[in-house]
Amino acid sequence: MAVEPIGVGMLGYAFMGKAHTNAYKTLAYMTWPPPLMPQLVAIAGRNEAAVAEAAQRYGYAEHVTDWKTLVADERIGLFDNSGPNDLHAQPTIAAAEAGKHVICEKPLGRDADESYETWRRVAATGVKHMCAFNYRFVPAVRLARQIVEAGEIGEIQHFRGAYLQEWGATEGELWRFDKAAAGSGALGDLGAHVIDLSRYLVGEIEALSAITATFQPGREVDDAVESVVRFENGAVGTIEASRFSQGRKNAFRWEINGSKGSIAFDLERLNELQVHLTGSAPGERAQGFRTVLVSEAEHPFWEHWWPQGHIIGWEHSFVHEIHHLLTAIRDDADVAPHGATLEDGYRAAEVCDAMLRSAEGGGRETVSYR
Amino acid sequence: MAVEPIGVGMLGYAFMGKAHTNAYKTLAYMTWPPPLMPQLVAIAGRNEAAVAEAAQRYGYAEHVTDWKTLVADERIGLFDNSGPNDLHAQPTIAAAEAGKHVICEKPLGRDADESYETWRRVAATGVKHMCAFNYRFVPAVRLARQIVEAGEIGEIQHFRGAYLQEWGATEGELWRFDKAAAGSGALGDLGAHVIDLSRYLVGEIEALSAITATFQPGREVDDAVESVVRFENGAVGTIEASRFSQGRKNAFRWEINGSKGSIAFDLERLNELQVHLTGSAPGERAQGFRTVLVSEAEHPFWEHWWPQGHIIGWEHSFVHEIHHLLTAIRDDADVAPHGATLEDGYRAAEVCDAMLRSAEGGGRETVSYR
Amino acid sequence: MAVEPIGVGMLGYAFMGKAHTNAYKTLAYMTWPPPLMPQLVAIAGRNEAAVAEAAQRYGYAEHVTDWKTLVADERIGLFDNSGPNDLHAQPTIAAAEAGKHVICEKPLGRDADESYETWRRVAATGVKHMCAFNYRFVPAVRLARQIVEAGEIGEIQHFRGAYLQEWGATEGELWRFDKAAAGSGALGDLGAHVIDLSRYLVGEIEALSAITATFQPGREVDDAVESVVRFENGAVGTIEASRFSQGRKNAFRWEINGSKGSIAFDLERLNELQVHLTGSAPGERAQGFRTVLVSEAEHPFWEHWWPQGHIIGWEHSFVHEIHHLLTAIRDDADVAPHGATLEDGYRAAEVCDAMLRSAEGGGRETVSYR
Amino acid sequence: MAVEPIGVGMLGYAFMGKAHTNAYKTLAYMTWPPPLMPQLVAIAGRNEAAVAEAAQRYGYAEHVTDWKTLVADERIGLFDNSGPNDLHAQPTIAAAEAGKHVICEKPLGRDADESYETWRRVAATGVKHMCAFNYRFVPAVRLARQIVEAGEIGEIQHFRGAYLQEWGATEGELWRFDKAAAGSGALGDLGAHVIDLSRYLVGEIEALSAITATFQPGREVDDAVESVVRFENGAVGTIEASRFSQGRKNAFRWEINGSKGSIAFDLERLNELQVHLTGSAPGERAQGFRTVLVSEAEHPFWEHWWPQGHIIGWEHSFVHEIHHLLTAIRDDADVAPHGATLEDGYRAAEVCDAMLRSAEGGGRETVSYR
Repeated sequence: MAVEPIGVGMLGYAFMGKAHTNAYKTLAYMTWPPPLMPQLVAIAGRNEAAVAEAAQRYGYAEHVTDWKTLVADERIGLFDNSGPNDLHAQPTIAAAEAGKHVICEKPLGRDADESYETWRRVAATGVKHMCAFNYRFVPAVRLARQIVEAGEIGEIQHFRGAYLQEWGATEGELWRFDKAAAGSGALGDLGAHVIDLSRYLVGEIEALSAITATFQPGREVDDAVESVVRFENGAVGTIEASRFSQGRKNAFRWEINGSKGSIAFDLERLNELQVHLTGSAPGERAQGFRTVLVSEAEHPFWEHWWPQGHIIGWEHSFVHEIHHLLTAIRDDADVAPHGATLEDGYRAAEVCDAMLRSAEGGGRETVSYR
Repeated sequence: MAVEPIGVGMLGYAFMGKAHTNAYKTLAYMTWPPPLMPQLVAIAGRNEAAVAEAAQRYGYAEHVTDWKTLVADERIGLFDNSGPNDLHAQPTIAAAEAGKHVICEKPLGRDADESYETWRRVAATGVKHMCAFNYRFVPAVRLARQIVEAGEIGEIQHFRGAYLQEWGATEGELWRFDKAAAGSGALGDLGAHVIDLSRYLVGEIEALSAITATFQPGREVDDAVESVVRFENGAVGTIEASRFSQGRKNAFRWEINGSKGSIAFDLERLNELQVHLTGSAPGERAQGFRTVLVSEAEHPFWEHWWPQGHIIGWEHSFVHEIHHLLTAIRDDADVAPHGATLEDGYRAAEVCDAMLRSAEGGGRETVSYR
Repeated sequence: MAVEPIGVGMLGYAFMGKAHTNAYKTLAYMTWPPPLMPQLVAIAGRNEAAVAEAAQRYGYAEHVTDWKTLVADERIGLFDNSGPNDLHAQPTIAAAEAGKHVICEKPLGRDADESYETWRRVAATGVKHMCAFNYRFVPAVRLARQIVEAGEIGEIQHFRGAYLQEWGATEGELWRFDKAAAGSGALGDLGAHVIDLSRYLVGEIEALSAITATFQPGREVDDAVESVVRFENGAVGTIEASRFSQGRKNAFRWEINGSKGSIAFDLERLNELQVHLTGSAPGERAQGFRTVLVSEAEHPFWEHWWPQGHIIGWEHSFVHEIHHLLTAIRDDADVAPHGATLEDGYRAAEVCDAMLRSAEGGGRETVSYR
Repeated sequence: MAVEPIGVGMLGYAFMGKAHTNAYKTLAYMTWPPPLMPQLVAIAGRNEAAVAEAAQRYGYAEHVTDWKTLVADERIGLFDNSGPNDLHAQPTIAAAEAGKHVICEKPLGRDADESYETWRRVAATGVKHMCAFNYRFVPAVRLARQIVEAGEIGEIQHFRGAYLQEWGATEGELWRFDKAAAGSGALGDLGAHVIDLSRYLVGEIEALSAITATFQPGREVDDAVESVVRFENGAVGTIEASRFSQGRKNAFRWEINGSKGSIAFDLERLNELQVHLTGSAPGERAQGFRTVLVSEAEHPFWEHWWPQGHIIGWEHSFVHEIHHLLTAIRDDADVAPHGATLEDGYRAAEVCDAMLRSAEGGGRETVSYR
């Protein structure tokens, strides 16, 4: 079986670089045959010793200290931007304009302007592009989307989502706390994920009000954001993000209530989906939220893995995500609707900006896209 | 609305006396109209000061220090034996032979012989009789019975039940640790409940093997019992009871697996039933254990209580139990199958004895009823 | 033991009348000796047949069809207003002005004006007064307060509370949907509870933004309210209430995150408290949210009940609440801080009004008390 | 950084072959630097087309249809036996006698005799050997061992373990149902895991009684086994395994109760450990089972993975397991106590055989090792 290769150029070797690289290496044999066979051409990073070790560790054929070298490398067909937020726009645009497909970590930009610019310029090139909102590729999240699309929970009335972590008080200097590098704090880091899944599962947000808080003295960015939202379809709810929730390690929790049922999820138990359906039979008398262990042969993405009940980890969302992108590249197919495009990245940024405007000005903000 | 009265004579004013008395007082207005209106005629106990205070507290018209006075009291139509195990047989028999209906706490006797004698002599009188296996009257347990009876989980293959508490090491002198008074330890106290519900939900036990343990030096009775059981219908499983399970406060847990589904329960969350049904539609893809909050208008016993989700407590099982008994008395109806009779009390004792024989002799014991 | 009596006059015999009456009857023997011995003097309701049956059922000596008869009855020392919202102000004020202690169901009034008037006029009389925010009297909630007050979770950064029910779409005509009778919908009915506990556990709310929704065509009141709040102490969070959350039967859920730990609660499991403490030892490596089964002898209110793990029901919160009020009456002690006074009822109404103003006007509202 | 290589020869390409191969490929970069760098030399299987595709898929340099070719291959330093049970003994012995280190899937043999022979002959060669009881390498399981060893839960009184799956009725012809190929059914497949962890966490089993059941007509092997056990240290408990537990997908659940605390685990939530410690301070009033999300930097194996709360999957246990073996090979260190040796494989088989004898004969069996 001959699988066509695709050269990958990676920007970044830290947390996200590790996660994306693992995806390329794993999908090569776990999703068999893979849509395209990743060739790890080169990895870029500013610290030469570190990037050299990363290349050795992960099997990139070369390492470079200037991302522009990746952009100029003709062997590279896919540019993977796993760098910090302030390195999202320029390299991603340059790579696309050099004809490479691109995947860029979220948030796409540090604000809506930068994100819009990135999206428009990349889209203009005609390459495939993806914003790495990887949680769309958690099997339970995809299953939720299937249930919603099939109308099984009816009209949606509520979405409440919160992404809670606890390390905000104990971590020291990080680029994530630097406004120039990160754009925002918990909002862009965690809140953007909530916004993206709310758009993926419920629809566009029409209006919102928000309050932000910075608990750590001297910190430039928000430690937490709290908002109320109204969707275009009439659903209302809340979106929150915080780095100051003790005991919540990686608690991205959301719940959707519809006229015929409800769905709830917690990333700390990412293999499970809580599903309540009002109309199921038999068992009118035995209704309640079902703990669905999303690990059956017929569940999304599960054909790649193990017998039922042998659960997978957080990192596998990236395997599915990049598998999706490679399939779109191979087939010249749309990344949307299941994959987040750079337009989705921009739209999340537009909502984030509206939250910051509301937090500052106190008014309810309407979300409008350019 | 005139409700016919029934005079109640109570033996005991400690834990069980309090629970039973609360039931009489509560059902008088919560289950409206009650089947019969309890009149608290007299309460018996050996410590006069204590029993006098109990009478005042609970509203018994009189107090006595000799239970025989209750037996002789013609105003009493129902004799409630909430005394310790060694006071079960004689007063219960005497009351029945004096023509009073009887309810007796579990275990019915200290062994199968005593239990058999009590059952036979009481049954011979023709009065209504009940062994207070109150957990049959937890709404979730009754719902489980309904689901099993309706065939919704198919043929039963497994029952695993454990009743775990933690106080075995820290409590001092108690009649419960005295073999002469209690008969056995965790087995008769907790294990009898597991045995009774296994019989109520699955069927008769055919054979078993057991191991007991006494962890506390010098203690006469078992602190824990572990057994494997085979039911007449072919199901197999385990039955356990322990007073040495740290952190398990009142954890009476059981699970039933059938060919079409499963049910699980934990007394620490007594308003919930975990139900898995393989054949439900829609939602083949959204199967899993449902957390049924057993608190809907159509759920067992719930017509007496509150709007859905307003959960009830442990003590309410006694309200339902005694309501059931009063109904049987009023209607001259069978206490069985939902109420445990003294025959059920005897049968649980026969199983307990078989467990002790197996624990001592090491062999698998067949359960046979006289 | 002679316990001094107090005559009780009850307005209402529906859901709340049943719950309050059960409390008077139960505390008389469960909390022994009770602070005062309730005498059920009379019950008022507009439907004579119904109120007559209620009197017989619950043991009120008399029934009346005009609440003013209760106010005029000198045997009555405590006026219990369990009527609908539009019958809160006038009877409560009249009873207090007649020298009776009063307890009034929540919301205190249909808006802040009415609530303020009620509080001020009642307070002017010098009687004891209580607004029946019964959830302060759930053992787990009181335990949470103890933990917060002891500083065990440090400075509070977040409160997120939601009271979710599901019956909004299926119930027909109810006074609860009538703006003139109820004042508001989910907000006053459910949201007021969230507001009250947020004030009890975290502190005063300083500012908020809100969105409301009415999903049922033609309905006058809100079906759901979503809000973001900032507390005076700097904590931020969300407060929600909805009658359109399928599968959530009585899900009053809240979580508090502090600098040293977190606490979470769900009314559907009211005997449990989730507690995370960062600083516990031993076991740095074994940290996590503890499921505290709030049923130990040393836990709040537990001295009245059963051995550990024998859980209590929703209705018991009222037993504790009225026990608290009777103690305050007997001892001429403050109802606050653990009991909600009519001032607390007013304050909750002020917050509710601010939410409605924000929902309508779109701006962030400052909460200020008169 | 130059990592010394080790040639791997793999027998089997199905479920376990996939899991083991994934481990070699993943540890090469996730555990950096790896103890030895696996070189995938060759893979053996009987179906040439299938094994050829497996070689291509996973990157084995060669494929062979006779495992003896692997044994003869001097490039291979580690022989990995992921074949069916009836191919465990002979190839494993042959590989060891050819001087290769060996890892063999569980159960080591189809009975104790075969397992004993395998262990003794392999041990005689002096190579490193491991029986792939991979659940010892789940982070939560290792954490449990640390807690037990540190004495934090005191003396152990109970172990109750069950490994429950549901596919027994729906799967058709499988070697797992063939007595000649598999040796036993649920017992060797699932029960062996329970036995191994009970030995790892509690200690040696001294005596036991068991009942087995075969629900599927015509099936040669057990569908379920139920047993009671007594450990040498005095603890008592139950061990179960079943393929007929509807709704339990991969539910390997165990609980340990000790004099100072308890620990509980469920493989379906393998990133969590339930821990109850009686002596923790502060918070006497806030005790309860903690849901420890075993994903902190200081937790076992976690240095290889992600920031806290980013959970890992079932397959990662194999990464840790083989990492452990490679470390032992590199350092000429003991595989025990954390790795299961072939002696552990034999001991589990001895317990399994005792269960079958008890199930057949009805008596309590003593476990004695040769």
